[in-house]
Amino acid sequence: MYHGPHLPFSEESSLQQRPSHPTCTQASPSHFDLQDSILQGKYPAKAHCAKVASYLQTKSANAAGKAVIYLEGQKTILIEDNDEPRPFRQRRSFFYLSGCSLPDCHLVYEFSSSTLTLFIPDLDPDSVIWSGLPLMPAEALRTYDIDNCLPNSSLAAHMSSLAQKDSDIRFYLKDIPRDALLSIAETTVSTDTNLLHPAIDECRVTKDAYEVALIRQANTISTAAHTAVLRAIPTARNEQDLEAVFTASCIAHGAKHQAYPGIFGSGENAATLHYQHNNQPLSARANILVDAGAEWNCYCSDVTRTMPLLRSEEAGAATFDPPTRAIYTLVLRMQTAALSLLKAGVAWETLHLRAHEVAVQGLLDLGILRRPDEGCTVADLMRERISVAFFPHGLGHHLGMDTHDTGGNPDYGDRDSLFRFLRIRGSVPEGAVVTVEPGVYFCRFISGAVFAG
Amino acid sequence: MYHGPHLPFSEESSLQQRPSHPTCTQASPSHFDLQDSILQGKYPAKAHCAKVASYLQTKSANAAGKAVIYLEGQKTILIEDNDEPRPFRQRRSFFYLSGCSLPDCHLVYEFSSSTLTLFIPDLDPDSVIWSGLPLMPAEALRTYDIDNCLPNSSLAAHMSSLAQKDSDIRFYLKDIPRDALLSIAETTVSTDTNLLHPAIDECRVTKDAYEVALIRQANTISTAAHTAVLRAIPTARNEQDLEAVFTASCIAHGAKHQAYPGIFGSGENAATLHYQHNNQPLSARANILVDAGAEWNCYCSDVTRTMPLLRSEEAGAATFDPPTRAIYTLVLRMQTAALSLLKAGVAWETLHLRAHEVAVQGLLDLGILRRPDEGCTVADLMRERISVAFFPHGLGHHLGMDTHDTGGNPDYGDRDSLFRFLRIRGSVPEGAVVTVEPGVYFCRFISGAVFAG
Repeated sequence: MYHGPHLPFSEESSLQQRPSHPTCTQASPSHFDLQDSILQGKYPAKAHCAKVASYLQTKSANAAGKAVIYLEGQKTILIEDNDEPRPFRQRRSFFYLSGCSLPDCHLVYEFSSSTLTLFIPDLDPDSVIWSGLPLMPAEALRTYDIDNCLPNSSLAAHMSSLAQKDSDIRFYLKDIPRDALLSIAETTVSTDTNLLHPAIDECRVTKDAYEVALIRQANTISTAAHTAVLRAIPTARNEQDLEAVFTASCIAHGAKHQAYPGIFGSGENAATLHYQHNNQPLSARANILVDAGAEWNCYCSDVTRTMPLLRSEEAGAATFDPPTRAIYTLVLRMQTAALSLLKAGVAWETLHLRAHEVAVQGLLDLGILRRPDEGCTVADLMRERISVAFFPHGLGHHLGMDTHDTGGNPDYGDRDSLFRFLRIRGSVPEGAVVTVEPGVYFCRFISGAVFAG
Repeated sequence: MYHGPHLPFSEESSLQQRPSHPTCTQASPSHFDLQDSILQGKYPAKAHCAKVASYLQTKSANAAGKAVIYLEGQKTILIEDNDEPRPFRQRRSFFYLSGCSLPDCHLVYEFSSSTLTLFIPDLDPDSVIWSGLPLMPAEALRTYDIDNCLPNSSLAAHMSSLAQKDSDIRFYLKDIPRDALLSIAETTVSTDTNLLHPAIDECRVTKDAYEVALIRQANTISTAAHTAVLRAIPTARNEQDLEAVFTASCIAHGAKHQAYPGIFGSGENAATLHYQHNNQPLSARANILVDAGAEWNCYCSDVTRTMPLLRSEEAGAATFDPPTRAIYTLVLRMQTAALSLLKAGVAWETLHLRAHEVAVQGLLDLGILRRPDEGCTVADLMRERISVAFFPHGLGHHLGMDTHDTGGNPDYGDRDSLFRFLRIRGSVPEGAVVTVEPGVYFCRFISGAVFAG
């Protein structure tokens, strides 16, 4: 998914992801064994805490060894004017440092002893009647990569004791819980509410093996769902039939949440980058774009595929008509060309420019673009930014706990239309996971805006 | 769905709803024609405005004729630390007075002229590139039961002109938009931020034909989904397989949202009232409780069914084993007995008590309850509140734009355990839509809490 992406004819994959199109090379079985064995271990919360602590120490001269991270998880929040909770989505920074996706928790990480303490809601007997036993501390210790598990009611005293133990200690936090604030205010401890989140965001950019395995798992589930959609095309009558198949496949594989609202756009709907209706009949439409991906344990996948809807008279399966196949093949060439340049440290703009060059050459070859005069070169047309009318967004983005993950240093103020919407600028660090998702659109609003500008 | 409901063996339906269990009597086809023809018209927003205005005039002596309702719809709100919007859910009060489920809108209703004006986001050329053309005023006038449609940029001036036109005018509102506040503050207009929402809540309790048709439509879709679940049981391996089938059926019928998080609890999970994992294998479990309902145009359904998972050796289809069938039949009797008493003006407690009496008698007949001595009567056991250990929640609730809809006047402070969790107290008004959802649970946490207390 892109910020205004939703590619009518696109291939999309990530740096370390298994190709998810059934026509692509499949990963070897051993690949999956590895993934499974990694995920049988615990989410490496303490390694993430240590990574963030190390980063914080580089940013703050006096923090060496005497510091604490405090973070509150996402709370249960009721729907407005309603007694039911909103759908829960764990605060990403909290999951990163705890691996815990339960509501109403807190964490404290002590730099000096590398101790991670998870605070969970106190046992509420009334709630047990309705919901059964919640997570108990012993189970939390077995489940999460933590050193201690305490009830929330002990949080304020715990923080107060940390503050009193060492008057030089520094607290890194986003928000301070009110009762803890009172107890800390009586001490000489210093607090910093600015550095923690940027530090976590920065550490999240490069992924460890466990995170890659989670993203792979989300991809595997999305692959099965896209394949199910492909199989369901002959019997589907409406875009929503295919959204139903995709969603069902994800849920049946244990992925209750989508990484982002899926786009199921047939015919010209595929050229509306943020198409959301997903409710139009498929009859007389040639193709459908499916931009949808599952979430797995707070980690996202992001897969876009365009599939044919029309059956040729001789073949049983649906096939692209020749003009569509030409564009599909062009976009695939754009992606392949970009992927071939992808390596740690490469400047992202290099890939983006390469995809545009392939697009310009391809559109010339197809006669969709015409040279104003014989001497006009691809480089000349690139300078005119002509391909932005067909491929208006950036090439991809970081992928992780957010579909548009942290990192990338975009410059949306860039006055150059070719680069303005790039979500990644400059070099791509080793260990990052990114999507590569070029597209070619034929949309009057896009070309109109570009040619008017 | 109940506040801690999720009945292991239950039947649930609403006052005016078509029975949704395949074994129940089906509505006649003409019933559906009527429903369809009603929904082809516009949602009666102006009738709702007039109803609320009339109610407000009874509560406020000086409001006669000289008043305005202003209401803001739900805004687009980004996910925390993320550039994507949260899943959108229209503010119910706003939908009630406009029929519009788009984000970032406002409405103004003038009592004196019965004029309803909808304000929609101004056209944003940048957004058109990504999302295509949004709703335009001419289409809004065709779609909604409104008199005018204006861009949001004209809202402050519009409110200011209303305030200047009549210095005695009163504004009923929940929150005042900042720029409108400035313009109103320069006038002598009076504002009331207390009455509007209670007035809307009160008006929502009794439904008109259009609202009933919307709830019926949600029920029809849920019926199809529950039926699909029943059909999928022979091939399902896990609770999540059935959740997948239910969700897919709803989406394929155009219902993108569930009225509430569905519960798919097999075996003893069915006795956890708020079971949410929906991820356990079905093998060796006898039954599954499915408490799930679709939402249709902001209106909810709420249907709970318990279905057998085990096939008898002779019959091909799954059937209940004899003890389960006995409890299923008992709960059905409780529901039938309660439904037979349901009519406009009835005291809800009458139905609730009747369901409990049937439960006590049934549990005695089954030998699950035993009389401490021969002279002990059902009335004696009722006085002991013994059945609360098996049926701890209230009998049902109002159903409408919220699953637990407005109305009912509950008294959660009631010290009598038989009535404490009733969501409806006193008489049920004509035109209300309610669920009737008794249950019998065998859950150590419920019986433990009741017998300990």
